[in-house]
Amino acid sequence: MGQQAGGISNLENIYVILVKPQMGENIGAVARAMLNFNIRNLRIVNPRDGWPNEKAITMSVGAKSVVENAEIFDSFADACADINLTYAATARLRNMNKPVLTPKLAASDIFKNIGQKIAIVIGPENFGLSNEDVANCNKIITVPVNESFSSINISQATGIICYEIFSHSFDRDDYNLNQDQQLASGKEIELFYQHLERELLLRGFFRVEHMKEVMQNNLRGIFKRVDNFTSQDVRTLRGIIKSLTN
Amino acid sequence: MGQQAGGISNLENIYVILVKPQMGENIGAVARAMLNFNIRNLRIVNPRDGWPNEKAITMSVGAKSVVENAEIFDSFADACADINLTYAATARLRNMNKPVLTPKLAASDIFKNIGQKIAIVIGPENFGLSNEDVANCNKIITVPVNESFSSINISQATGIICYEIFSHSFDRDDYNLNQDQQLASGKEIELFYQHLERELLLRGFFRVEHMKEVMQNNLRGIFKRVDNFTSQDVRTLRGIIKSLTN
Repeated sequence: MGQQAGGISNLENIYVILVKPQMGENIGAVARAMLNFNIRNLRIVNPRDGWPNEKAITMSVGAKSVVENAEIFDSFADACADINLTYAATARLRNMNKPVLTPKLAASDIFKNIGQKIAIVIGPENFGLSNEDVANCNKIITVPVNESFSSINISQATGIICYEIFSHSFDRDDYNLNQDQQLASGKEIELFYQHLERELLLRGFFRVEHMKEVMQNNLRGIFKRVDNFTSQDVRTLRGIIKSLTN
Repeated sequence: MGQQAGGISNLENIYVILVKPQMGENIGAVARAMLNFNIRNLRIVNPRDGWPNEKAITMSVGAKSVVENAEIFDSFADACADINLTYAATARLRNMNKPVLTPKLAASDIFKNIGQKIAIVIGPENFGLSNEDVANCNKIITVPVNESFSSINISQATGIICYEIFSHSFDRDDYNLNQDQQLASGKEIELFYQHLERELLLRGFFRVEHMKEVMQNNLRGIFKRVDNFTSQDVRTLRGIIKSLTN
C-alpha cells in the first residue's frame, strides 16, 4: 500500500506524448500499458485518423480513462509547451550530441527531477520520430533490441519504459533534488530559441539556406543538454541576447 | 557485434510457452516481442482458434518465422517434457511455496542455468494460468504493476520479461554454472511424480478425495523447489521409492 501511494504521487507529472500515431489500436494499447504502470497523462500530436477514435477505446480495455482524458495538439511544440524535460524514444542512431539512455538508466535519470513535468516522446509506427522532433528533446531513450529485428511496437516500447519508471518509483517516494529550482518549461525555452534565431537571422547567421535547419537543430541541441536548465537560466540568456543586440 | 553474438548463443534454449491463448492477434504480438529480444522458440498449448492462425502471422509483422516455427501441444505437460526449468508469469498471489521474482531478478536467476532448456509460461488472456499449471512450474515471475489496474496484455508481459532476459545477456556471454550437470527434464520429473503418486495411491495416502488435487500440487511443489534438480537426483529418488515399496 505504501508502495502504491508512493507510485501515484511520484508519477503524476509524467506524460507520454505520441507524435502522429497511425492506428487507434496502438493508441489504446499504449494507454493500457501506461495505466498498468500508473502513468495517466497521454498527449497526442496529430493522430492520423482523427479524434476521438473508437478503436483506441476498445483496445485500451480498462484504461478508457487514459484515452478519454488524452489531450490533442496540432504541433509537437504545443504538446511540450509546459513540459520541463523530454525523453525521445528512438532506436535509430542519430549522430546527435545527446545522452542516450537505456530504459533502466532513463528511469533513474527521471527520478533526479521527479515532480517536474517530464515527457516520454514516442514517434509514429512507420518511421519513428523525425530528426527535428528528436533534436527538440533533451535526451534519448533506446530500448536495447535484437539488431536483426529491431522494429518494436509503440505500445511495447511505451510499456517497457513505463515499467522501468514504475519499478524505480518503489524505493523513491519523495526523491526530489530541485525543490528550490523551477526547471524551464518548453514554452519558455521555445521563446528563447525564437528570440535567438530571430536575431541571428537578422545578422545573416543562417546564410546557407539548405543548412539552416541543421544549424538550428545543432544550436537548439546545445541548450537541450544543459542539466537543470531553469527558468532563471532562460531569463539570464535572454538578457544576454538583448544586451548583445542593443 | 560481440554483444549480439553473445545474445544469440545465450538465448537459443529459452522458450515461451503460451497456454490456451485466445486471440491470434495476441499470439502474433507475443512472437514480435520475442524476436525483438532475440528469443525465438514459441510453444503453444491448445490455441483456442486452432492452428495455423492467419491473424497471428499478420500481427507478428516481421516475426513470421517465430509464428511459423511454433510448436503446438495438447497438454502443458507435453509442452514441458524436455524443459529443465519453468517460470510461470502470473500476477495473482497464489499462496504457493515458490520463489516469486520480478522480471529483473528472474533474468538474473535464469542466467545461473543458461544453456539448459528454460521456459517462460504465459496463461490465457482472460484468467491467466490455472493453479495446477503454476504448481507445475519451478518459480513465479510477477511483473510489478499498478494494483488498481493490473490487467496486463500477454504480449506486454512477454515483452517485458524477454527485454529483461535480453538486457541481462549482454554482460553474460558464457556464464554457466552447471557445465558438468544435466538438470532433469520435465518428462523425467513427471515420470517420477507418477511413480510416487501411484505408490501413494495404492497405500491410501490421498484418502480424502476432494483434497487429492491440493495434496498432489503441494507434493509436486516441494520438488519444484529443489535447486539444480538433476537427472541423477531423479534417478536417486526413484531408487528410494522402489526400495521403500519393495
